Amino acid sequence: MEGKIPYVTARRLPLYYRYLEILHKMGKQRVSSAELSEALLIDPATIRRDFSYLGELGKKGYGYNVAYLVEFLLEFLRQDEPTNVVLIGVGNLGTAFCRYTVYRNNQTKIIAAFDIDPLKVGQDIDGVPIYSIKELPTFVQTKNVEAGILAVPAPSAQATADEMVAAGIRGILNFTPRPLSMPNHIRVHHIDLTMELQMLIYFLKKYPGEINTDDTPFFGR
Amino acid sequence: MEGKIPYVTARRLPLYYRYLEILHKMGKQRVSSAELSEALLIDPATIRRDFSYLGELGKKGYGYNVAYLVEFLLEFLRQDEPTNVVLIGVGNLGTAFCRYTVYRNNQTKIIAAFDIDPLKVGQDIDGVPIYSIKELPTFVQTKNVEAGILAVPAPSAQATADEMVAAGIRGILNFTPRPLSMPNHIRVHHIDLTMELQMLIYFLKKYPGEINTDDTPFFGR
Repeated sequence: MEGKIPYVTARRLPLYYRYLEILHKMGKQRVSSAELSEALLIDPATIRRDFSYLGELGKKGYGYNVAYLVEFLLEFLRQDEPTNVVLIGVGNLGTAFCRYTVYRNNQTKIIAAFDIDPLKVGQDIDGVPIYSIKELPTFVQTKNVEAGILAVPAPSAQATADEMVAAGIRGILNFTPRPLSMPNHIRVHHIDLTMELQMLIYFLKKYPGEINTDDTPFFGR
Repeated sequence: MEGKIPYVTARRLPLYYRYLEILHKMGKQRVSSAELSEALLIDPATIRRDFSYLGELGKKGYGYNVAYLVEFLLEFLRQDEPTNVVLIGVGNLGTAFCRYTVYRNNQTKIIAAFDIDPLKVGQDIDGVPIYSIKELPTFVQTKNVEAGILAVPAPSAQATADEMVAAGIRGILNFTPRPLSMPNHIRVHHIDLTMELQMLIYFLKKYPGEINTDDTPFFGR
């Protein structure tokens, strides 16, 4: 099964899973592609095509079975071993991130934070220790760290990302407003808070009240 | 022109704009749909289709002209009047958000923050004043606030969002891990930090090294 799913579809599965898990916990039993589309900002036709790769998950006009989808995706996405993640830059955003994830019980864990400020080094955030950025390379090697969250001030973004890559980190969640120039084998996901706000405003202004997107003729199968 | 662009395409235009603007500032002159796809997590075929609505923007196999696209999208997305935004919840994330956007010169502005903590009320974050949440309804009405950023602790998310809607806010950028149950005319964009991290890890594990997505046969025109 896994081998047959296109990469572009696979990229969206974690997104589906997180949202469906929430619906499931809320007691929702069925969900339509139009509802998923609105929540996840993915075209309804794309959702239907994605789900078609997963097998017989729903009847036409009846929506998808939430519990079944959650079960299916959980099995598909299951990570057998825990993943060690580090956070670079213990400002407000970095602190928020450490606290935010601390009450989620999954296999992904922020095991350490790094900063250049000597006043922060040696402290901890809800049990996550803060080390000097100089210790990053040794730490990454000994603890087998694969991914890092970049939450430093914008002017330091590229230089710090370069340090992360030199230390052996393969994936970066970039929370700075700056795009990163990285080698091809490094995976970067960029979340630009200002852009997210801009997009919300844009739709409020240009498409007031227009929520359901399933009426467009542009996305046939 | 504007009337002819499908809603699903229009939703992606701000995303394109923000990223192309960055490329433009970096001095990049041309960009392919494959490059945009990797950066924005949108299928290359979708990007090509979206751009086809905007007119003759590129030659096949040659990529798109970055400067021209930026100019075009800027004109399309231009907001004539400033938009007043408020922030609810002055914790680490809320504080980071106020600081993050402060050095961006655009028409969208966080003009006030609100909290329930009497120690925070009366203070400010880099010039953004902090008021009591009780003052929200009056403030929204007098200052014509359309959108709000929700950055309160998860257990307060729904109740606070309800207060925002009651106060007259039409759009919410939800930064809590909780989904919101909202009336249909309210626009909610949800950014779940844990989900973003999960997705990065998932791709590191399942698709190591697989970056370029333009080779899939599943997205024909």
